[in-house]
Amino acid sequence: MDRPKSHGRLSISASLRPGELMTDRPRLKGAWTARIITLFPDAFPGILGLSLTGKALDQGLWALDPIDLRPFGEGKHRNVDDTPAGGGAGMVLRADVVAKALDQAALGTPGDRSRWPVIYVSPRGAPFTQATARRFAAADGLTVLCGRFEGVDERVLEEYGVEEVSLGDFVLTGGEIAAEAMLDATVRLLPGVLGNAASTEEESHSGGLLEHPHYTRPAEWRGRAIPEVLLSGNHGAVERWRREMAERLTEARRPDLWAAYRRGTD
Amino acid sequence: MDRPKSHGRLSISASLRPGELMTDRPRLKGAWTARIITLFPDAFPGILGLSLTGKALDQGLWALDPIDLRPFGEGKHRNVDDTPAGGGAGMVLRADVVAKALDQAALGTPGDRSRWPVIYVSPRGAPFTQATARRFAAADGLTVLCGRFEGVDERVLEEYGVEEVSLGDFVLTGGEIAAEAMLDATVRLLPGVLGNAASTEEESHSGGLLEHPHYTRPAEWRGRAIPEVLLSGNHGAVERWRREMAERLTEARRPDLWAAYRRGTD
Repeated sequence: MDRPKSHGRLSISASLRPGELMTDRPRLKGAWTARIITLFPDAFPGILGLSLTGKALDQGLWALDPIDLRPFGEGKHRNVDDTPAGGGAGMVLRADVVAKALDQAALGTPGDRSRWPVIYVSPRGAPFTQATARRFAAADGLTVLCGRFEGVDERVLEEYGVEEVSLGDFVLTGGEIAAEAMLDATVRLLPGVLGNAASTEEESHSGGLLEHPHYTRPAEWRGRAIPEVLLSGNHGAVERWRREMAERLTEARRPDLWAAYRRGTD
Repeated sequence: MDRPKSHGRLSISASLRPGELMTDRPRLKGAWTARIITLFPDAFPGILGLSLTGKALDQGLWALDPIDLRPFGEGKHRNVDDTPAGGGAGMVLRADVVAKALDQAALGTPGDRSRWPVIYVSPRGAPFTQATARRFAAADGLTVLCGRFEGVDERVLEEYGVEEVSLGDFVLTGGEIAAEAMLDATVRLLPGVLGNAASTEEESHSGGLLEHPHYTRPAEWRGRAIPEVLLSGNHGAVERWRREMAERLTEARRPDLWAAYRRGTD
């Protein structure tokens, strides 16, 4: 569907079959796009449809294409999984079924994995960090395979060069929540999504330290006063106090981050 | 509302004002309960309403009480936040406003924080792990304060003994997604939620190692065969292979987990 030039960068992409797309939202041409392979396409946009990420989605600053894995399944019941070779509990997503969904997700995307990472959300992966979010945000888009059951056949991960990424050292019922968390962290870094650009600069972890404590009105509450220096109007002193508190907090709570920070500043 | 005894353990708790509760679902008496203080109560149950966690919610195996922070705000506009003392970007949730919501969330709950943890989701907190999920699942319930904006006034965290918990070293637009991830990891550990109890035993991280690779039919796919040992029927050999693969994967991908595992087995 072409629109008059006067509508600027707004356009509807047509890289997937129409039935697979959420075509009720505008999409800026070339907007960062997430393709999510899932057995629960209704889980999207979910919480990503609210707040800043939802507003940005409505504005077409990014786009979301859930791809239902079920239609790619085998036989009358569209089975997507089977019992694990070698025995054991749970079920394993089939390589051939997942491959068909990955092929569909790849339509119209660059094959270069640095321009369009293809990830599988799994506790076996590399930990997702703010650096991962920045890398994803710098790409043209991202394909996310959401696991369910016991896991996915290893061969399809190898064959397609799928990167395993972990939200953390805990087990979820499925990859969908982890995908939403990773997308939230990524999308807020896209140009125009955060109203106040300064917010991405100062916040937690951007400097390798945990964030200093925050205070706001009232000046005294239940006998607890806001630290005097924060009300002094002395910007240099405020900065020094915040830096010191951030360092003290990081040292106490996160020896791992503290050690990395000390190595970086020595 | 009392129900006939023949309905067994089903009852509706009445510890909060009715308008604050999702009263359309049954609740098993004493069922594990999550109270979520949030500016986005509509975000719940969200993805937790699907799949295993959603089925368990429908069965009353756990309960979810979103508590809207907004009505506790100040003035005509129900302001919940104010500018940070000492200056800077973003807004800070007010201690007095959050305190009122925490008071409401505490109604009918044990004051002992080990029986009912009260947490604030923040990148400054201790990392959420499977051990955290187990600890939360062993409690009677959990209150979660979801942050937005720059942060929350430090004094209310101190005054109420609020535990800070982090989903990981990345920044989200708000605490709601992190809360959903933590609840998912916790709820699946509650009795009766997972159909197959064996699944919680074998899975990733339960043994301190990353999970071994999985395979399922077809036996050969795009020239890639399932490792022969998995088709041997020799259970001892399968177990040895899986252990070896899990160890090799952990050593390669997660030196931190590997070091901890080696310390534990030495």
